[in-house]
Amino acid sequence: MSHYTAPVEDMGFVLKEVVGLEKVCEEAGLDTSTVDIIETVLDAAGKLAKEEIEPINKPADLEGLKINSSGEVTTAKGFKEAYQHYVEGGWGSLQFDTAYGGQGVPFVVAASVQEMWHSANMSWGLCPLLTQGAVEAITHNASEELKQRYLPKLISGEWSGTMNLTEGDAGTDVGALKTRAIPEKDHYLIRGQKIYITWGEHDMTENIVHLVLARLPDAPAGVKGISLFLVPKILVNEDGSLGEPNDLKALSLEDKIGIHACPTCVMSYGDKTGAIGYLIGEENKGIQCMFTMMNNARLTVGLQGVSIAERAYQQTLSFCKERVQGVAPGYTDAGPIIRHPDVKRMLATMRSITEAARALTYTACAEVDMAAGDLPTEMLARHNRRLGLLTPIVKGWCTETAQEVASLSLQCHGGMGYIEETGIAQIFRDARILPIYEGTNGIQSMDLVGRKITGDGGLGIKELILEMKAFSNQISPDTLLSKAQLDRFKESLIALEEASSLVLNNSENKHYLGMIAFDMLMMLGTITAAWQMLKSLEKAKAAFENKKVSSEFFESKTKSVGHFIDSILPRYLAHFTTISATSC
Amino acid sequence: MSHYTAPVEDMGFVLKEVVGLEKVCEEAGLDTSTVDIIETVLDAAGKLAKEEIEPINKPADLEGLKINSSGEVTTAKGFKEAYQHYVEGGWGSLQFDTAYGGQGVPFVVAASVQEMWHSANMSWGLCPLLTQGAVEAITHNASEELKQRYLPKLISGEWSGTMNLTEGDAGTDVGALKTRAIPEKDHYLIRGQKIYITWGEHDMTENIVHLVLARLPDAPAGVKGISLFLVPKILVNEDGSLGEPNDLKALSLEDKIGIHACPTCVMSYGDKTGAIGYLIGEENKGIQCMFTMMNNARLTVGLQGVSIAERAYQQTLSFCKERVQGVAPGYTDAGPIIRHPDVKRMLATMRSITEAARALTYTACAEVDMAAGDLPTEMLARHNRRLGLLTPIVKGWCTETAQEVASLSLQCHGGMGYIEETGIAQIFRDARILPIYEGTNGIQSMDLVGRKITGDGGLGIKELILEMKAFSNQISPDTLLSKAQLDRFKESLIALEEASSLVLNNSENKHYLGMIAFDMLMMLGTITAAWQMLKSLEKAKAAFENKKVSSEFFESKTKSVGHFIDSILPRYLAHFTTISATSC
Repeated sequence: MSHYTAPVEDMGFVLKEVVGLEKVCEEAGLDTSTVDIIETVLDAAGKLAKEEIEPINKPADLEGLKINSSGEVTTAKGFKEAYQHYVEGGWGSLQFDTAYGGQGVPFVVAASVQEMWHSANMSWGLCPLLTQGAVEAITHNASEELKQRYLPKLISGEWSGTMNLTEGDAGTDVGALKTRAIPEKDHYLIRGQKIYITWGEHDMTENIVHLVLARLPDAPAGVKGISLFLVPKILVNEDGSLGEPNDLKALSLEDKIGIHACPTCVMSYGDKTGAIGYLIGEENKGIQCMFTMMNNARLTVGLQGVSIAERAYQQTLSFCKERVQGVAPGYTDAGPIIRHPDVKRMLATMRSITEAARALTYTACAEVDMAAGDLPTEMLARHNRRLGLLTPIVKGWCTETAQEVASLSLQCHGGMGYIEETGIAQIFRDARILPIYEGTNGIQSMDLVGRKITGDGGLGIKELILEMKAFSNQISPDTLLSKAQLDRFKESLIALEEASSLVLNNSENKHYLGMIAFDMLMMLGTITAAWQMLKSLEKAKAAFENKKVSSEFFESKTKSVGHFIDSILPRYLAHFTTISATSC
Repeated sequence: MSHYTAPVEDMGFVLKEVVGLEKVCEEAGLDTSTVDIIETVLDAAGKLAKEEIEPINKPADLEGLKINSSGEVTTAKGFKEAYQHYVEGGWGSLQFDTAYGGQGVPFVVAASVQEMWHSANMSWGLCPLLTQGAVEAITHNASEELKQRYLPKLISGEWSGTMNLTEGDAGTDVGALKTRAIPEKDHYLIRGQKIYITWGEHDMTENIVHLVLARLPDAPAGVKGISLFLVPKILVNEDGSLGEPNDLKALSLEDKIGIHACPTCVMSYGDKTGAIGYLIGEENKGIQCMFTMMNNARLTVGLQGVSIAERAYQQTLSFCKERVQGVAPGYTDAGPIIRHPDVKRMLATMRSITEAARALTYTACAEVDMAAGDLPTEMLARHNRRLGLLTPIVKGWCTETAQEVASLSLQCHGGMGYIEETGIAQIFRDARILPIYEGTNGIQSMDLVGRKITGDGGLGIKELILEMKAFSNQISPDTLLSKAQLDRFKESLIALEEASSLVLNNSENKHYLGMIAFDMLMMLGTITAAWQMLKSLEKAKAAFENKKVSSEFFESKTKSVGHFIDSILPRYLAHFTTISATSC
């Protein structure tokens, strides 16, 4: 039995109605035919997720990974086969450049498919996630020769990719890293040790392409002296065939709270002769190159929050419908616990947060597509501003709320949630990495207030608030949305305007910005998610009237939106009070 | 190196100044000499916690437990020895009746000592916690003969106790249990299976006294047909010596997210001839008897929230002072991460929640003492009302906030928090049981709104609000507390009054009560904790002026209270909005 069925109806609805996939394709300059086949794509991906990738999730959590003395890692049972089918299905190449074997599908569609992998099996899904990042960094920064040699196999998924940033003394402070790169002929020799390398070594692909940050001799101190290198596990000959193994190996695997089936490696480069690496982009510009992959990876981590929340909700809903315990108000006999109001409340919270997080994340992902379109400069700038602003919000808010949803799913299971049997415990453990990797949520908050809000003098945030205000003014209270609910949203926008002014007026006061950054991120996340929920309600109504969605879907969306506006949106009040009370 | 040092100064301050230990002793009719020796007691307990009980915490998490085919459980290395020293030190008998070997120390003092055990090692601390519950149930309900035979060894800690409620189909709905008890001679024969029995079997004591809920033949259905039985692991002869083993055994141990060193057993009673049990209290009144132990156990679980929060804070503070990463605002060089404002924010949140939770929990524990005093009926009734009201708040709020503190402690560690090495991961995993056992927090919420607030027509809640209002009116804004901060507290009381009216006016609408119960619990928890923090500030000021506390302590308390009022108290706004928005 699979614990996950892809929520294809909501995904399709968000893509087509809320995000407006057709318009996204047009602005992005991509083929709009995707819109017509979207259900087919989602169904096919959903089948792979449900039937192959989910069933190996829990067994792999128990089995874990093996590493031998040569540093070879053996993945859990079924991982390799499921990955093979993923490659054969062409799932890795959806959003990439057709020139290198990609399918030219919008990123936002690829994101909706990726949501499924992470719902089904987060440990497994991290392998394609990292490969995607490597493809982006190479596509945007590497020489044509490197692209020709590495991209096709990475895009197909025959090879996988990694990101090597962290060292023992260089985590959040990546500028402190010590790995060295010495120029030699047409390449560099890399020497150093990296930690926390996700899928750094494994047996699912015949080659692994490591992107490694390192310092050249005499490079400036800090982040301005870091360069990015492509360091393949197996060297690649000119004709594209595999050559000799490179001088690198996995030393050990970390023992983690969760994602037990995902190898988190300590990697050693250049123990013998030096690992051969190829420069990506310019010398000392490695951080900029890495950020082209980091930004989308941050969105994808936010998406993992949606994934884990969706999965947690589905499994908990089934449990609450089956588990009989106690007589609920209005009943005379013992029945399933879903009858109890407090359980209903927890499920409604889980569901509405998940749906809001999905709409918000897909909206941000669509900006990736549009920001790469062939549009007038001003429109491109606007898409880039919006993308920049939404990225830390999606990463931060969707991973924080994923913790809440995972914890609620456990709580609904009572004592059974705390023991490992049901699999809910694994969800709770797996989810906890999300606020940490790809930049902790503290870093996201600082990125939000220190760069995204203040960097352009408030242009992006003001534009966003204006758009939300205009939206709020064109809806009227009706049977679906009471005046009080609409007013609550409008008031939140006024508060947001005030909070933004506080940030902008104190843009030089880094201490103040740091103190309020996290509250600002959560406030913005809550309010933009509410905006997306209200938009979803409007679009669901129209879609129902046009017979595009079922009455059940419309009814369920209406409830979900109402719960969000009544029970989740009010949280901004606490964040706003704290922001206002913090002394500058 | 121990990761925990008992916060003796804050404990002593809360006991003597905030709770008013001397007055508590007087009202409780207990020897006030405890007040004079309180520091000595806390120091001695702190030494045992730090030097013996904490160092075996992490190794035991890794080692776990063993069970053999006879159902014998072997505890982790050092557990038995530490327990032996605990018994020798007389730590188990502090608060119990001197007639049975207890020391007649106030419960609130015993609670402060217990806080240390759970900070040091939650798995280990659960054994004495359960024994305490068994002692209470026997003391208040059992026959004198049973008391004479069982209490002295339970009170000394030579024997341990358990609570056996849950069965596969009877968790929260305890009335659904199926374990049978058939009368025979002077005893009963018990047959059935119980799950989730904490410390149900182990090798630390020579006997284990199980308190088991079971049904007599022809007992009424549901909770009104349940009786409580004392079922010893080894039968006890009339002279108090140990006799034959009883017919019971542990079948298996649960594989849990955390508290790996605490045996959570599936227990089987009466597989062969029937387990011999002795009735405690009257037939079919088992639930009432069990509740005499459940209530104090609920307070103690809230206390575990304080414990785990304190421990998480201490370990994280050390880490943040040592871990060098990045240049903080106002600095020119890389330094410890405690310099970063967002890290400061997390630490301040952890600290202020921990201190508030301690003051609130000790205040509730002191009500246990006073409610047992030799006082006029009206005063006793008042103490009982307050105790009843605070019990679900302490259990619920202090265990919910403990999750937040544990999660923040992990977050401050970044990637190092997610791997098992630092021990922070264990804190996060251990803590997650707290909102579940001893009645889930959903059950606490229903107890709060369905019984405690509405049961007496609002008497208790109105009394509490009145007391908080009177308190708020007698303080004036000064350099320690701004007018805005004081007003925030006063406004929260007005909102609380309104929310309480909503609950009282809809006391028959169980569906509505269920929907808002959890928000009500969190709102009340937040506001009563703020009250205790403001009280702490007032008392700290007086204590500093009277040279009872250091200037560092006073300064630190001032900061902690300010942070609570600015950053934690505002959360009530979200809960209140949700309560108001939920339709009746």
